[in-house]
Amino acid sequence: MNIDGKSYRSIWLNPDGWSVDIIDQTLLPHQLRIHTLQTAEDAAEAIYSMRVRGAPLIGATAAYGMALAMTEGADDDYIELTRKSLLETRPTAVNLRWALARVSEALQAAPVDARAGLAYALAQRICDEDVRINASIGTHGLGLIEGIWKEKRGTAETLNILTHCNAGWLATVDWGTALAPIYRAHDAGIPVHVWVDETRPRNQGAALTAWELAAHGVPHDLIVDNAGGHLMQHGMVDLCITGTDRTARNGDVCNKIGTYLKALAAFDNEIPFYVALPGPTIDWSTADGVAEIPIEERDSREVTEVSGRLSDGEMGTVRITPDGVTARNFAFDVTPAKLVTGLITERGICPASEAGLASLYPAREFS
Amino acid sequence: MNIDGKSYRSIWLNPDGWSVDIIDQTLLPHQLRIHTLQTAEDAAEAIYSMRVRGAPLIGATAAYGMALAMTEGADDDYIELTRKSLLETRPTAVNLRWALARVSEALQAAPVDARAGLAYALAQRICDEDVRINASIGTHGLGLIEGIWKEKRGTAETLNILTHCNAGWLATVDWGTALAPIYRAHDAGIPVHVWVDETRPRNQGAALTAWELAAHGVPHDLIVDNAGGHLMQHGMVDLCITGTDRTARNGDVCNKIGTYLKALAAFDNEIPFYVALPGPTIDWSTADGVAEIPIEERDSREVTEVSGRLSDGEMGTVRITPDGVTARNFAFDVTPAKLVTGLITERGICPASEAGLASLYPAREFS
Repeated sequence: MNIDGKSYRSIWLNPDGWSVDIIDQTLLPHQLRIHTLQTAEDAAEAIYSMRVRGAPLIGATAAYGMALAMTEGADDDYIELTRKSLLETRPTAVNLRWALARVSEALQAAPVDARAGLAYALAQRICDEDVRINASIGTHGLGLIEGIWKEKRGTAETLNILTHCNAGWLATVDWGTALAPIYRAHDAGIPVHVWVDETRPRNQGAALTAWELAAHGVPHDLIVDNAGGHLMQHGMVDLCITGTDRTARNGDVCNKIGTYLKALAAFDNEIPFYVALPGPTIDWSTADGVAEIPIEERDSREVTEVSGRLSDGEMGTVRITPDGVTARNFAFDVTPAKLVTGLITERGICPASEAGLASLYPAREFS
Repeated sequence: MNIDGKSYRSIWLNPDGWSVDIIDQTLLPHQLRIHTLQTAEDAAEAIYSMRVRGAPLIGATAAYGMALAMTEGADDDYIELTRKSLLETRPTAVNLRWALARVSEALQAAPVDARAGLAYALAQRICDEDVRINASIGTHGLGLIEGIWKEKRGTAETLNILTHCNAGWLATVDWGTALAPIYRAHDAGIPVHVWVDETRPRNQGAALTAWELAAHGVPHDLIVDNAGGHLMQHGMVDLCITGTDRTARNGDVCNKIGTYLKALAAFDNEIPFYVALPGPTIDWSTADGVAEIPIEERDSREVTEVSGRLSDGEMGTVRITPDGVTARNFAFDVTPAKLVTGLITERGICPASEAGLASLYPAREFS
């Protein structure tokens, strides 16, 4: 996507031919700074500290982390050591496990001196595939939005879509998952307006989704995470689309904490609630998302402290609680399939159920 | 309630006998500063800028605002002018309308030279009544909590209660509404643990509820507003209690934005969801809360900027969004009665319905 007219992906090979460049998302929206990864450890740090985030981008970064590792040492033990250390960075997104398994299995089958070249080629392929997948999600989602707008056109000036967190191009290599249909609809002339959940505690909506949408010219308003229910009660939301970090076999979707609450409100107000996902977020080995998906618990300071730009333009952090207050910080929740109207994938739209997923992925790939 | 062993109310007559002292809640939890109101305009400013907030305390402050006005001028026109200007400060809480009507009707029936004295006496009476009402809510709520703990005792070490916003003593004159039962249960030796929703955008949970609970020694953890659904799905919440700024005749409750989402999650997970209220928040003239209660929309900077304490100890504000982002800021939402397990009032606990309310308030007082 474009930033000030210049085309970017969220991750790319540095012109030096071996190190890897990312946009440091912890500094957005106030600073656009490119951060260079030179070691597998740099890649792990970038995932852990959320310089990169979003299930597809985590997978792509991990793949490049394996490639960087191969420049450090290419024996079997180092492949396994690196795979494990990258896997430990985030427990919930299943793309991470998938990308690491894909790369490390291929590497172990290759001669040692071919491994570095192979790893870079595979990382590049994973990135290119992700872009194609998301473009296809955009196409299928566009059809959905066109249908809803056809019903509403004539009675309203805008089509209002609510999204939670950031499932835009910054969460993927390009295009995004939940935002891909929105970009396509906007480009097709449908007067889309987006309600952007700020998405506490890390404010990915306020910082990243708002920034992305502004850069692309899509009308939007920021709201607190508490507001969506009220908007839905009063006819101010026509459609919800979110991403997912892991999709269980039964259609349960694990996404940023708070997604479940929006799905409940959409269900109560009979508003369609769709989840956009690339195939690699499907976890065929998880039968029941609510019961089985591990939920990452992060540092409580993400809750008690808020960062942003001070009035003098510098970055700063404020503490919003009294001293000594303890906080708990669960990063994801699971939305039961019963609340999900449908899943928008690169292969089409299907019901959120095992039968629905199997209709599009009969070979049960990606596990 | 106590702060460092000293007993406070949230509003009281200054020792000078005519001006009115409040705790400036915009500075909590980082500074405890007493703010003195000397004019009716000061009272209006304190309500509008949320130095005082919470439906019962807004009503009490407005009553004292009428008393301050009577020291400025006591003719009929000035009573009406002041009543109107205080009423305009916040549109949602119905206690404001109730307190202003009660005081101004009494004043208009009194001789001009008796009005100032009468107004102060009435304001004092409204405050004392509020304290008695909330103490009684605490007693009825204690019975409820004792019953739940009796069921759970033996299988768990704590009784987990989730609350949203601040309906503690700082939202009232003393004790609080939703927190009164919690204080009573804690004092009675029940091992209560409170999940404190931070309550964006103004963070009344993070700033006020956490501070109150800490001052009283009640164990608690702060969570983001997004987290409650996940906690409820996983058996980590036994009971929800919130306040309400206006209760419709049909049992719909209007409370801080986001309350509705928690009620949906409680309903979906079969967790009791109770709302604590003093009689004066009942609006008998509103038949349908969701359709009729006006929802205040506040300054968008409450969403785009967050205030707190900087690392150097000074207060500061950070902007969390890109420049130019617009935000919408709805302050309340309405939870339909169907999601409310019961209403905890000063007269007992009743179903959230017209019949339930009428069983406790057969004379339909307070309208």
